[in-house]
Amino acid sequence: MSKGITQKSEDHSKWYTDVITKAQLADYGPVKGTMVIKPYGFAIWELVKDEFDKQFKATGHQNAYFPLFIPKSFLAKEADHIEGFAKECAIVTHSRLMADENGSIKVDPTSKLEEEIIVRPTSETVIWHMYKKWINSYRDLPILINQWANVVRWEMRTRLFLRTSEFLWQEGHTAHSSEEEAREETLKILDIYESVSKNHLAIPVLTGKKSESEKFAGAIDTYCIEAMMGDKRALQAGTSHYLGQNFAKAFDVKFQTENNTEEYVYASSWGVSTRLIGAIIMVHGDNNGLRLPPSIAPTQVVIVPFFRNDDDLELIKNYINPYLNKLSNSGIRFLLDDREKISPGYKFNEWELKGVPLRIEVGSKEIDSNELTLFRRDINEKSTVPIDSLINYIHDTLDEIQVNLYDQANKFRDDNSFTADSYEEFKSIIQDGGFVRCGWDGTELSEKQIKDATKATIRCIPFDQDPSGKRCIFSGEKAKFEAVFAKAY
Amino acid sequence: MSKGITQKSEDHSKWYTDVITKAQLADYGPVKGTMVIKPYGFAIWELVKDEFDKQFKATGHQNAYFPLFIPKSFLAKEADHIEGFAKECAIVTHSRLMADENGSIKVDPTSKLEEEIIVRPTSETVIWHMYKKWINSYRDLPILINQWANVVRWEMRTRLFLRTSEFLWQEGHTAHSSEEEAREETLKILDIYESVSKNHLAIPVLTGKKSESEKFAGAIDTYCIEAMMGDKRALQAGTSHYLGQNFAKAFDVKFQTENNTEEYVYASSWGVSTRLIGAIIMVHGDNNGLRLPPSIAPTQVVIVPFFRNDDDLELIKNYINPYLNKLSNSGIRFLLDDREKISPGYKFNEWELKGVPLRIEVGSKEIDSNELTLFRRDINEKSTVPIDSLINYIHDTLDEIQVNLYDQANKFRDDNSFTADSYEEFKSIIQDGGFVRCGWDGTELSEKQIKDATKATIRCIPFDQDPSGKRCIFSGEKAKFEAVFAKAY
Repeated sequence: MSKGITQKSEDHSKWYTDVITKAQLADYGPVKGTMVIKPYGFAIWELVKDEFDKQFKATGHQNAYFPLFIPKSFLAKEADHIEGFAKECAIVTHSRLMADENGSIKVDPTSKLEEEIIVRPTSETVIWHMYKKWINSYRDLPILINQWANVVRWEMRTRLFLRTSEFLWQEGHTAHSSEEEAREETLKILDIYESVSKNHLAIPVLTGKKSESEKFAGAIDTYCIEAMMGDKRALQAGTSHYLGQNFAKAFDVKFQTENNTEEYVYASSWGVSTRLIGAIIMVHGDNNGLRLPPSIAPTQVVIVPFFRNDDDLELIKNYINPYLNKLSNSGIRFLLDDREKISPGYKFNEWELKGVPLRIEVGSKEIDSNELTLFRRDINEKSTVPIDSLINYIHDTLDEIQVNLYDQANKFRDDNSFTADSYEEFKSIIQDGGFVRCGWDGTELSEKQIKDATKATIRCIPFDQDPSGKRCIFSGEKAKFEAVFAKAY
Repeated sequence: MSKGITQKSEDHSKWYTDVITKAQLADYGPVKGTMVIKPYGFAIWELVKDEFDKQFKATGHQNAYFPLFIPKSFLAKEADHIEGFAKECAIVTHSRLMADENGSIKVDPTSKLEEEIIVRPTSETVIWHMYKKWINSYRDLPILINQWANVVRWEMRTRLFLRTSEFLWQEGHTAHSSEEEAREETLKILDIYESVSKNHLAIPVLTGKKSESEKFAGAIDTYCIEAMMGDKRALQAGTSHYLGQNFAKAFDVKFQTENNTEEYVYASSWGVSTRLIGAIIMVHGDNNGLRLPPSIAPTQVVIVPFFRNDDDLELIKNYINPYLNKLSNSGIRFLLDDREKISPGYKFNEWELKGVPLRIEVGSKEIDSNELTLFRRDINEKSTVPIDSLINYIHDTLDEIQVNLYDQANKFRDDNSFTADSYEEFKSIIQDGGFVRCGWDGTELSEKQIKDATKATIRCIPFDQDPSGKRCIFSGEKAKFEAVFAKAY
């Protein structure tokens, strides 16, 4: 049955937009570059957010909220860091509307602000301004604060979830009394990012360090989780930065040490965003639409009854209700789709599009045989199950689906990850799509020339590495690092 | 022991700010009118938010996210509604920063936008723009969407939590196929607002309708929950609007009915905000700081050990740990404050300021007698409890504190709620502070003249009312309504 979406192999980008539209995940907002996250998409985001939030709190972090508005002068303080993201931003210059001559409204010119205000592209500056007020002594440290917020970076080329002017994210900003502790924090968060990606989003990620040219300009070191999408391109799915004393110096944040000396504090910052929803779609989606890992599926099990009239439906409900209660008590998120005048086939279509991991079909056939028909979205296959073993079956199967989606993604990534012995081979792989792991001499020149020629960038310098005896894939010089190259979103 | 805060009776406004500062709830942001919600304040907000969110979802509502940015032209569409809130707002006119001559940054004049963008003061317009795309037929209705978001209304006179340029809130926006259903929704939400206020915030509220001059300009009817603060002033704590077809007409949102006719949809909208934190402070706070209802206290129980060295602490931990595990398993939010080099008295002070409902003190005295010393923040009294009955005692006492804080607030409100037989009496009560319930002729003229003379406004026209035989407190004419007047925040 056609789902009315473009085939993935035919046009990946159109397939992606089709899935988002048909599964009702998101829509375009009226201002260019903005996105509306529709209820179904937002429900996925809430589950992703809750899991991260739980893990941040379990490791001692607290949430807070900092203002949307930043004085322009604050961005000047980090003028060194402004290259890259902060140039393209939304600038507030006036504070009042008034009626115009035509009975419509216009900006009141007398409301011009003395200093322009920037809509936060990230909150580092306003947070460090506050930390200066809050931090005096080593007793005030560490500060382990996270914020869930919207941020704005002016974008002209919108791609839903991946690149929009406004997006939702979390940004952690921590302050410490030593480099060691701040570095430990940076990597602790990277571990959380990796583990949530793997265990909840079912997305395998590479972890490692960014090259100088790919790192956050305000950071000493940027670490990342990097995933492979269904078109073999890379997506940076989260970053964790060791900031050293950069922001502390820009905002003059010193603390009194235990030895009564004064020192600038050490810092980390880290974030993941609604971009992860894009990753989920592109890693797991197929030609029938979305496929959701059970851990983050708003509906884990949908029950579709076959009925012609109220009596049929009544019989079905009597048959399954005792089991639904048990499902409910065991914490499964399920939905009985008893909408009338909509055919089971239409419903199948809809829930497959929306990626519900498990579907139960039930009609007179199932009642007669004391069974239920189940459909697994991860393998698109049906089976029958005795109704008595339903609850265990569902728990086991959801666990299996969670693992299987990860395994499928992992296999796809493995199948499309290569090493290369020559630059010709490298270029050919990049052209076909995939990750290439190879030697790199560590120079920006080689990195830039590879990028100019192939559009491939260094996605990360993996933690686990052994460059000894290797040569740079571009220059042929002695390799300083092993790096993973790919074309990226 | 002095908490370093102004006495409530001396200067209520300064007391309020002192509590916020000393209890570390919030701070002022760098842009005038903005607020930073600090971790402790934000943890309260998360508990408040979670309770509302649970109840919205239990009644069939879904969360979504709409863009921060609204085209200026959208606000013109509801030019009738713009009076009141939307005039004072943040207006984005440019989209790029650039380096200036002095190595600092300036706004790039070439990035001027064709149409100015408004930072949402509320999302009605952008949501109704989307609803036009999403609604075609009665099958698409109802739409029951809620959004947790930040909104901006330019404010020059800031009061933390009560009046800031940016604040956090939820805004529900629902669309229905009939007036009856939309009206039912409006009141269903008001019920949730009332019940969460009462059962979780421990705040008694009046419920009723706003007068024409106090209602939301875009609404047919505005309903509200109205609370009395500790200085006897009223605070509008939440509103639920029946919008009729106003926004549907402004944004041309029609649906095909079951009878194949076309009709404009009916709507409601409703919201509560971080202003509720202000209400919690002003309803429950005392001269020692905040007092939190257990239901929304980030820490419900704090344990302060008396110890001189690690051995003492070890003994205490051995004594209480088995009980702390039980507390944890029974879902109590507690904290063992074992910070070194900080005296128990200092800790008492701090946790009283922060309003923790119950404190446990434990030292060698308690160990010797197989007891614990407990301090209830709602009555500021100590008692001793056999350690064996600790868990039950804590559960029971937290329940009691929850009820007692409500009862105290309710008594205070009752003691300061009056009826009046003459305008002289009315004026005298308003001057002293309190709510006055009396007859009103229903005219804007009387309402305005009362406001001009006394600063009292109609807080609500209670549901439960009987104006028959009553006279307007101002004009002496036959009363159309009974109304509750008060000075308000």
